[in-house]
Amino acid sequence: MFNQLGVIGCGLMGGSFALALKRGGLVKRVIGYSKSPSTTERARKMGVIDDAAESALLAVSGSDIVLIAVPVAATETTFRAIRHLVDPGVLFMDVGSTKRDVVDAARRVLKERVVRFVPAHPIAGKEAGGVQHADAALYQGRQVILTPLANTDPVLVQKATDVWSAIGCQVLKMTPDNHDAAFAAVSHLPHLLAFAYFSAVARQPAGNDYLSLAGPGFRDFTRIAASDPAVWRDILVSNREEILKQSLRFRHTLDAIEHVIRSGNGEALEDLIRQSADARANWQMSAGAKTPGSR
Amino acid sequence: MFNQLGVIGCGLMGGSFALALKRGGLVKRVIGYSKSPSTTERARKMGVIDDAAESALLAVSGSDIVLIAVPVAATETTFRAIRHLVDPGVLFMDVGSTKRDVVDAARRVLKERVVRFVPAHPIAGKEAGGVQHADAALYQGRQVILTPLANTDPVLVQKATDVWSAIGCQVLKMTPDNHDAAFAAVSHLPHLLAFAYFSAVARQPAGNDYLSLAGPGFRDFTRIAASDPAVWRDILVSNREEILKQSLRFRHTLDAIEHVIRSGNGEALEDLIRQSADARANWQMSAGAKTPGSR
Repeated sequence: MFNQLGVIGCGLMGGSFALALKRGGLVKRVIGYSKSPSTTERARKMGVIDDAAESALLAVSGSDIVLIAVPVAATETTFRAIRHLVDPGVLFMDVGSTKRDVVDAARRVLKERVVRFVPAHPIAGKEAGGVQHADAALYQGRQVILTPLANTDPVLVQKATDVWSAIGCQVLKMTPDNHDAAFAAVSHLPHLLAFAYFSAVARQPAGNDYLSLAGPGFRDFTRIAASDPAVWRDILVSNREEILKQSLRFRHTLDAIEHVIRSGNGEALEDLIRQSADARANWQMSAGAKTPGSR
Repeated sequence: MFNQLGVIGCGLMGGSFALALKRGGLVKRVIGYSKSPSTTERARKMGVIDDAAESALLAVSGSDIVLIAVPVAATETTFRAIRHLVDPGVLFMDVGSTKRDVVDAARRVLKERVVRFVPAHPIAGKEAGGVQHADAALYQGRQVILTPLANTDPVLVQKATDVWSAIGCQVLKMTPDNHDAAFAAVSHLPHLLAFAYFSAVARQPAGNDYLSLAGPGFRDFTRIAASDPAVWRDILVSNREEILKQSLRFRHTLDAIEHVIRSGNGEALEDLIRQSADARANWQMSAGAKTPGSR
């Protein structure tokens, strides 16, 4: 049980975390700060937060748990704003989709206090962002990845594990590098491919005619191409090294399949397709991520 | 109203067409042929067809409407088997996902009788094939593309339009070349990319670990990677010219986005993503293709 949760960034992710802790009776009071005062005011009126803070630092003051839920590229600025109150015994976490850049920023700004920060990535979300879509059940039944450093305070790591578990998450731990490599493969690259594919189809001379003929396969394949441009700009830039590595793997596989298509070797082509088709048919989402709409 | 429908290939597509015509009171009798006698027998027991024919030719004999619903690469063999009974006044159609190869095969085999064949591609289907999944409503509310030649009998084209309309389809007409170019862009290339992407992720050293972390975005993006390998082998080979053209467009767009990612120009990247994201958010499937599961 926490006395006060400080939320920095009262959007979908931060707001949903506040609602989940409240619903679970895990916190007495929530104080929130957002860059836009109208967001903070909306969050207060919705009962997502109890009080609005005038600054990120004031949202930290008096809190024993703090969630930083800002776009990844704004994390370092947030650390700078709050570093003087990163005190022992307070659990600091984020919700960023990339972890190495967040950990690097934490090291640079927090110095030795970096041990009080537990980096977190809940595999949850919705197509539509904003506090108006905040949902106490957003994290229910999802996975959350924690990427603590070797010297991160183990008491805080345990507290982090407990609070995410208490709101229904399956908690996994890995290194920031492993996290970023894995999500480059299964999340960041698909977004990049979907953006590129949709753009390539739409921007050709007969693009609009073609789009009018597209069916449900196209609809599902391109759903993630509608994702938030500012969020994905940050992810694609900050994790570019791993994403470009994955893209190269993909290009090699595409080259290999196209080579077989060009050669007209139907049998070899069917074998290649069957490997994918069988593996995909046998794949199931893990227990942690069953509801539609998350990333 | 037709007297007798001959179905060659009593699978999902052929079986569903038979059921739809029966339900609409559009045909008195259905006779069916499949390469596998157990399929024909199953279709008969299910009431999809009234009688089993011993050969494709016998399924045509006495029919005034014939549907060829075999994998695209088997179309030419089918034409050879039935060419002696391609008589005036009988409506011959197929359901293939590619049209230029089908039309070429029809020209080669049927010679001047090609004018009696109305090539058709209903934009409908299910992940699971086979007559056991045949469904009288499969074509309801879908688009069907007819690709008649300049000299195709206009009376038969009108009959084809009427029968697809009667079972709930929106009928569009285009040339075989335009059809193949359009579906290379919005259907065939996405399948190729999904096969290549899934294979690239799954076949790397940590592939299985990565797959266990994948969420709903990945699930939707890769759904079509589970499609039927034999069907997609034929489509990718027969329409390879257009598909490889579309793949090249896609690669150029991917190159352009990766160039901006490498340069770290966040503003330019956000602009590129926003173009895709806005266009995708504004895209809607046409009235003809609203139910999940079709290609």
